[in-house]
Amino acid sequence: MGSATPRRRLPVTERTRHRRLREQGSLDRDQLDEILAAGFVCHLGVVVEGAPMVIPTVYGCDGNTLYFHGSVASRSLRASPDATVCVTVTHVDGLVLARSVFEHGVNYRSAMVHGTPRLVTDPDEKLAGLRCLTGHATPGQWDYARRPSRKELAATALLALSLGEASVKIRTGAPDDGGGEDARLGLWAGVLPLRATWGALEPDPALSEGIEAPAHLAKRVGAPAN
Amino acid sequence: MGSATPRRRLPVTERTRHRRLREQGSLDRDQLDEILAAGFVCHLGVVVEGAPMVIPTVYGCDGNTLYFHGSVASRSLRASPDATVCVTVTHVDGLVLARSVFEHGVNYRSAMVHGTPRLVTDPDEKLAGLRCLTGHATPGQWDYARRPSRKELAATALLALSLGEASVKIRTGAPDDGGGEDARLGLWAGVLPLRATWGALEPDPALSEGIEAPAHLAKRVGAPAN
Repeated sequence: MGSATPRRRLPVTERTRHRRLREQGSLDRDQLDEILAAGFVCHLGVVVEGAPMVIPTVYGCDGNTLYFHGSVASRSLRASPDATVCVTVTHVDGLVLARSVFEHGVNYRSAMVHGTPRLVTDPDEKLAGLRCLTGHATPGQWDYARRPSRKELAATALLALSLGEASVKIRTGAPDDGGGEDARLGLWAGVLPLRATWGALEPDPALSEGIEAPAHLAKRVGAPAN
Repeated sequence: MGSATPRRRLPVTERTRHRRLREQGSLDRDQLDEILAAGFVCHLGVVVEGAPMVIPTVYGCDGNTLYFHGSVASRSLRASPDATVCVTVTHVDGLVLARSVFEHGVNYRSAMVHGTPRLVTDPDEKLAGLRCLTGHATPGQWDYARRPSRKELAATALLALSLGEASVKIRTGAPDDGGGEDARLGLWAGVLPLRATWGALEPDPALSEGIEAPAHLAKRVGAPAN
């Protein structure tokens, strides 16, 4: 790439080695960070009594750590505090419309993190982790809203997961059958992109008159969301 | 509701009983169908050597059956053909911005399906299932694109999962702290909606001149995507 800062590589483990569709696999650590930064809802996989359970939940990232709420995994974590989890974050960018049904696909960016989460008990780390979680979905909101009371903090379980074992998959661009025999069929082919954008703010009907939305929220309206 | 057609209920099992945030839980079978119909990418949870793995993949629904590609679950399915999976479909509708950090949340619609998938081997069902999968993401495309050859069909593993054990969670509307003590803080509160829309079609650069996009694709541009 020739840039001054070399891109960082992800380590390969038995779990993160790309087996299928290897051309979509990436070991670029910066891509991992970019995919995680672009989202705020992950799908958390846990094993409960031998069966998988996949739960959508919010997350935040700080350096090499991904934070999420412990409550969502409470059943699994109570049963087995050292249980492995899998956290997957996916951005769907569009439909890949090929000449043949077989070559149809999806443009996407996806990150998968494996590991055993750690329950955050240190009060300072817990506060910092919750700040990270809140700021990840809504930058500026931690400084604007009322921060957690001692009682609220105690009622919140926060989990920390290392980004040390992770993999990335990305597909971009046009269908792959433009150079093949099917290109002679005379069919249209291309991509139907999917866009996620923030809509107009909807004030709480209970809001008193004269309270304006703060700038850190107002400026997001209409902006791309991932 | 008073409508002529009563809404159908989902059965409650040990796995689908709502334990947390029960006010967000639903047992409405029609809501399940609506959530599944509104998406085309699910997060498939499987257990591989005791650890969870969460894989994004496309799906389609036909009556009481959800179809997905077998290849994505190949590692797990080879190891244990009768393994239970969990398929979760989530639509993120917006950020719930409360007066307190503690009451912040997400508006969403989520469906979770549990069961043991069945490998589809009957040629007719396989073709119908693939048609369902393709038509779910892109209505009209099955009839427009070249359909799978015998060889392509053989290279595709299709799995069928019953919708018999499923649950739904939905959160909509304003933050919950509009009537509490925090409402006197004078802070703005409300929802920042997230919109998914289809963008402008991007023709394959390899496309010959004069090939126009078919109407079933052109009409989706600018439309809501979930």
